[in-house]
Amino acid sequence: MPTTPVPFTAEDYRARMVRAAEAAAAAGLDGLLIAPGPDLAHLTGYRPGVTERFTLLVLVAGRDPVLVVPKLEAPDAEGAVGGPALTLRDWTDGTDPYGVTGPLLPAGGRFGVSDNTWAMHLLGLQRQLPDASYASVTEVLPMLRAVKDGPELERLAAAGAAADATYEEILKVRFSGRKESDIAADLADLLRQFGHSQVDFTVVGSGPNGANPHHEAGDRTIETGDMVVLDFGGLLDGYGSDTSRTVHVGEPAPAEQHIHDVVLEAQQAGVDAVKPGVACQEVDRAAREIIEEAGYGDLFIHRTGHGIGVTTHEPPYMIEGEEQPLVPGMCFSVEPGIYLPGRFGVRIEDIVTVTETGGRRFNNTPRTMAIVD
Amino acid sequence: MPTTPVPFTAEDYRARMVRAAEAAAAAGLDGLLIAPGPDLAHLTGYRPGVTERFTLLVLVAGRDPVLVVPKLEAPDAEGAVGGPALTLRDWTDGTDPYGVTGPLLPAGGRFGVSDNTWAMHLLGLQRQLPDASYASVTEVLPMLRAVKDGPELERLAAAGAAADATYEEILKVRFSGRKESDIAADLADLLRQFGHSQVDFTVVGSGPNGANPHHEAGDRTIETGDMVVLDFGGLLDGYGSDTSRTVHVGEPAPAEQHIHDVVLEAQQAGVDAVKPGVACQEVDRAAREIIEEAGYGDLFIHRTGHGIGVTTHEPPYMIEGEEQPLVPGMCFSVEPGIYLPGRFGVRIEDIVTVTETGGRRFNNTPRTMAIVD
Repeated sequence: MPTTPVPFTAEDYRARMVRAAEAAAAAGLDGLLIAPGPDLAHLTGYRPGVTERFTLLVLVAGRDPVLVVPKLEAPDAEGAVGGPALTLRDWTDGTDPYGVTGPLLPAGGRFGVSDNTWAMHLLGLQRQLPDASYASVTEVLPMLRAVKDGPELERLAAAGAAADATYEEILKVRFSGRKESDIAADLADLLRQFGHSQVDFTVVGSGPNGANPHHEAGDRTIETGDMVVLDFGGLLDGYGSDTSRTVHVGEPAPAEQHIHDVVLEAQQAGVDAVKPGVACQEVDRAAREIIEEAGYGDLFIHRTGHGIGVTTHEPPYMIEGEEQPLVPGMCFSVEPGIYLPGRFGVRIEDIVTVTETGGRRFNNTPRTMAIVD
Repeated sequence: MPTTPVPFTAEDYRARMVRAAEAAAAAGLDGLLIAPGPDLAHLTGYRPGVTERFTLLVLVAGRDPVLVVPKLEAPDAEGAVGGPALTLRDWTDGTDPYGVTGPLLPAGGRFGVSDNTWAMHLLGLQRQLPDASYASVTEVLPMLRAVKDGPELERLAAAGAAADATYEEILKVRFSGRKESDIAADLADLLRQFGHSQVDFTVVGSGPNGANPHHEAGDRTIETGDMVVLDFGGLLDGYGSDTSRTVHVGEPAPAEQHIHDVVLEAQQAGVDAVKPGVACQEVDRAAREIIEEAGYGDLFIHRTGHGIGVTTHEPPYMIEGEEQPLVPGMCFSVEPGIYLPGRFGVRIEDIVTVTETGGRRFNNTPRTMAIVD
């Protein structure tokens, strides 16, 4: 386990908000309107519960960031790590929060709105400012959170190390004769034990269940001879982990070993393709090419990867058609797989960050097929 | 504990959707557009995880309900209890879900949109159907979920009984010398033990902390002589509990007993005011009048109650200015309180449902001040 990351400071958030406002201006927007959720957590460190009460970060290039917030919740917002970088405008029950927000926005402007802003609030803003126009952040600024700064990279590394520790421990438990859901519960316990505050998924796909990449964990009893896909992750200190390994209960058959070898080679090819300036789709192509050449192209039925940060699934996506160039600080999964319907599946996944010269993994446990009991 | 409620059927949901579509038409709307969240759970029993993928229930009076759903999630939607009452229109990654939705909506119509629909999706619909207009459900149809049917009332009764069992057990634990957070953890364990799948809040406000109605539970060590406000609830079988009692560690002083007596009388007056046709604000007035007459009006600093159902806070609200008449089947809290800053607080809360003749409580533990160790 790495040492505990240095705590975030208000300065970290201030710099992040300046970069976001500049990126918005460069994308032709007059500002960003950010509701509680992952965008707000990334930009301010403030993670309020999501309720019907209106809270909105207003970011306009060249102006101080303003947080419109219910008066009762203002102390919590001030107490967030990024609080000192915010000017608060509070509103009280019975008054109109959209009326408070209107004067903060350039008239007739075009604004990026965080995807998960409630429709109720967007309708309130549209009524208040009928001449403004709005677009979802994912549409107009999909890379808003994609490039991580140093303190964020430290946290993703810590989350990855905790996932690695989880994997090392799960190899010691008994698989045969137990249900998938039992192993999934073990994974969740271990993730928490190694510091995760939130477990987002614990996939245990044994035998034919492993051939369905959307299978989570069920009642099936694992038997000797099963391949088992493990895919688990969550949040530690606010940042995500997500790793997959495929293990075998007892000795694998040659055909099973072969499929695993192909996926292992594909995963390495995907990671090797990671370099600044390379398009996201090239990472997908590099992994897919290995699997296609081995004759299993039709059985690799999902994209090669997704971004990770304050959530466990976010842009950028490693998928055909995504021409976004990789930038140092981006973090995402590389997770090719082969799925044989009715038989078994294999997936191998690490989180990788783009460095100045290539890719660096945040997951470093062996990727060869482990034999479990 | 009451017997387990009869399971919901597709027919229950079908009837609920018909009533909702008719209520929307009566409110001058051409339809309702319902995203994943409490409205969808209430209308269909389908509770998908909320992701960026577009899922929307389209309810138009006189037409069959249609659920637009990602193809990967269609089997889960079909498997929901209300699934047989829905026509599914699936869409696949890479296609446009708004294009699938457009033809389902009357041209140029006005639609109620569930409050928590993502802005990204509302913007997609607005682009697809620029001549339509939209309003939030809370604005145009605030009572959409307010009137509960028989199977829902059974569930709220069961959740209330589990909260009552929790209260009876918490009276047996030691309070003095332990932290508020320890008692809160006990309450959460008990709620789960008595069947809750989700704990939403476990307020333990001891001594001066009890005077802040927004206090949850902290590090303060409870001492003999403290008043302690307990306010706890969550979801059982998809429906909410929420109850408060105020207890005393050791014998209370006469002044403490007096304040508790006033709140007890106010709470009874609030419940006594519940009758079909009475405005919500009359429930607030009845409770508030007792507290004002006792000279503590300025210290009752919140509304008297809120609705409860598939969430633990929803319309109707028992508050001055709310002229909505009570209707049999509505369920809400009656929870007056008195808060003496720096000293202590008292709150007493039951969930009450409107019957044909009055109000019936779902919480039935003694409301007199319990003495704990």
